[in-house]
Amino acid sequence: MTKGIAILGSTGSIGCNTLRVVEALGESFRVVALGAGRNALKLAEQITRHQPEIVAVENDECAAQLDKLLHERKVKAPRILTGEAGLCNVATHEEADQVVSATVGAVGFVPTLRALEAGKRVALANKETLVMAGELMTRAAAKYGAELLPIDSEHNALHQCLRGEKRAEVRRLVLTASGGPFRLKSLEEIEAATVSEALQHPTWNMGAKVTIDSATLMNKGLEVIEARWLFGFDADQIDVLVHPESIVHSMIELVDGSVISQMGTADMRHAIQYALTYPLRQTSALAPLDLTKLGALHFEAPDIKRFPCLALAYRALREGGTLPAAMNAANEEAVRAFLDERINLADVSRVIADVMNKHVTKPVDDLATIIKVDLEARQEAQHTIQNLTQTPRALAGQSV
Amino acid sequence: MTKGIAILGSTGSIGCNTLRVVEALGESFRVVALGAGRNALKLAEQITRHQPEIVAVENDECAAQLDKLLHERKVKAPRILTGEAGLCNVATHEEADQVVSATVGAVGFVPTLRALEAGKRVALANKETLVMAGELMTRAAAKYGAELLPIDSEHNALHQCLRGEKRAEVRRLVLTASGGPFRLKSLEEIEAATVSEALQHPTWNMGAKVTIDSATLMNKGLEVIEARWLFGFDADQIDVLVHPESIVHSMIELVDGSVISQMGTADMRHAIQYALTYPLRQTSALAPLDLTKLGALHFEAPDIKRFPCLALAYRALREGGTLPAAMNAANEEAVRAFLDERINLADVSRVIADVMNKHVTKPVDDLATIIKVDLEARQEAQHTIQNLTQTPRALAGQSV
Repeated sequence: MTKGIAILGSTGSIGCNTLRVVEALGESFRVVALGAGRNALKLAEQITRHQPEIVAVENDECAAQLDKLLHERKVKAPRILTGEAGLCNVATHEEADQVVSATVGAVGFVPTLRALEAGKRVALANKETLVMAGELMTRAAAKYGAELLPIDSEHNALHQCLRGEKRAEVRRLVLTASGGPFRLKSLEEIEAATVSEALQHPTWNMGAKVTIDSATLMNKGLEVIEARWLFGFDADQIDVLVHPESIVHSMIELVDGSVISQMGTADMRHAIQYALTYPLRQTSALAPLDLTKLGALHFEAPDIKRFPCLALAYRALREGGTLPAAMNAANEEAVRAFLDERINLADVSRVIADVMNKHVTKPVDDLATIIKVDLEARQEAQHTIQNLTQTPRALAGQSV
Repeated sequence: MTKGIAILGSTGSIGCNTLRVVEALGESFRVVALGAGRNALKLAEQITRHQPEIVAVENDECAAQLDKLLHERKVKAPRILTGEAGLCNVATHEEADQVVSATVGAVGFVPTLRALEAGKRVALANKETLVMAGELMTRAAAKYGAELLPIDSEHNALHQCLRGEKRAEVRRLVLTASGGPFRLKSLEEIEAATVSEALQHPTWNMGAKVTIDSATLMNKGLEVIEARWLFGFDADQIDVLVHPESIVHSMIELVDGSVISQMGTADMRHAIQYALTYPLRQTSALAPLDLTKLGALHFEAPDIKRFPCLALAYRALREGGTLPAAMNAANEEAVRAFLDERINLADVSRVIADVMNKHVTKPVDDLATIIKVDLEARQEAQHTIQNLTQTPRALAGQSV
């Protein structure tokens, strides 16, 4: 039986790889809906190749551009929708059996929730969704019988490690981290890092936001929170281990001291395929892992002095409520400001810490609470960024 | 409910560790029968501590010695049996729910078969049993509803990796090997190795026979054959990977390219406990694995030029029938001759190759066939060893 696939964020890194996996898997999968941002050219290519029923783009201007591109190519245009409502339509399309949630940042939040409420199986690459509202998301999944499967390589690895194990027999989860491009750099070097240096990820080829998050280790912090919601373990049971080769994607430690790990090459298509075919595994033509070629795998503890974002994320997870959402919003604003060269890399954690310190944590009652916190934290972050920009070193050296 | 445990080979390395695990697990396990060889002193200690119902020793002389030791300690003697019949009584004791088969070499063969025929769950550390007669053993296990659980750390690891997976979705098994003390030595250095050099295993603390097998990589060859019978994969689906730290105990590769591995410290008690408590996992106080302390894990391909025993084992597995039993017998004799300083280490593979070349492979119909092949191969091996001893380098340089 053919499975219908909807993709939120189809023109991004995960989205494009999902389409390659769907092609490789052959006739058992069919693309029915695609949601993208402003990359009309790439979306036009994807429409030409996969012929979805509907697509969503950011706004009317993009929609018009897409329509023109398809007309030029003499490709029959699908229904073209716009904005968040458009993405929600993609996420709940009636022919979609599975929704791949692969937008970056908070934009995927509402559409992903709608997919869960529609009882869809959601393959989640958008970690911000669970960071902002893990409780709401998992509650919705349970209520509507929707399944959440992780595409992030670490959580996908944990999902694989946990297949044969009982929850009560798992002592801890260990998320591996490449350590990013500044693993061996001093605090001063990190402070002075340029955007292009920060965008040089040692092992994974990803989008800009995720790559900067990897450079600050906030990516791993977000993943710790994500793991809490996906697998239901406490902050104390989730550890981070720096592993520069990114071959061991993550591991679990059982109560008897045994450790089960999942390994693979650093190719997101493995995790995507796993999420699409689960509970089955399908033969893949991707190059298998050859440990003799690598020779060695290295491991070290993370350094929260040089990478304070990791500690901030643990703090947010332990305090809970709306604090992770505020932290996530502050991080998104700070990363954008860094990419725009308005603040330096070490300022990112300063902005987040400042927003977190000012935030008054409330329980997460509903979607409205989260959206309000997200908005307010972004404004607060902009305010802090503004101050940093005007008096560049005002916060420098301040402890987070 | 308390589980009764019988141990074949209680005074050996695995046997002693099994008793430590049983003590650590507390009241849920009880030792009901112990089989040993000639170490009456250690067996007397074990009887004092664990009060089994029956014990078996090698012969009447040992039995008398044990009786005297227990009398001196004022410990009530259990029923003391002797020889293979005694071990068979231990293996089939009515109060034994699980039998730990941990004798070294062919001596555990018949008692282990009897345990399976009695429908006992058998935790197997005696790899020669499956090498000699994997077909008979697995047939008996199936017929009498007996479960076979591996204690060898590699197979125990594979068992753990396979827990959550479907057989048809597994592409290959990868057994890790420490590489032994001569991993970095030249062929000439291996040829000239002394017994004490060969007994220096880099990571595991084991008995002499197993340690020499590790030095020649025959241990890994035996394990490849063992894996074939335990898990039902072909020789082409079982690979060996040298991993000097012995932390990754083994791994499996799935059809989708994902690799699942099991790791742990090099302490046999992990695997023993797993086999005893399966399908449950019980909390263990053993020190957990700390990869940050290790820093790095290394991997390389095995070199069959320097370690021809590995290739001989694959040849025996592929040809099948009685050849693995002949190979195993020749190896046992050759290792003993090396430990007695009658032949050098490189001669071990020469003796085995010579016996295998002369062996006429037959199907394994019954126990009698195996016992006959075992005996004849030992005689043939002794003959070859004799020749090597008299004209020391007569076979040197001969290709295997």
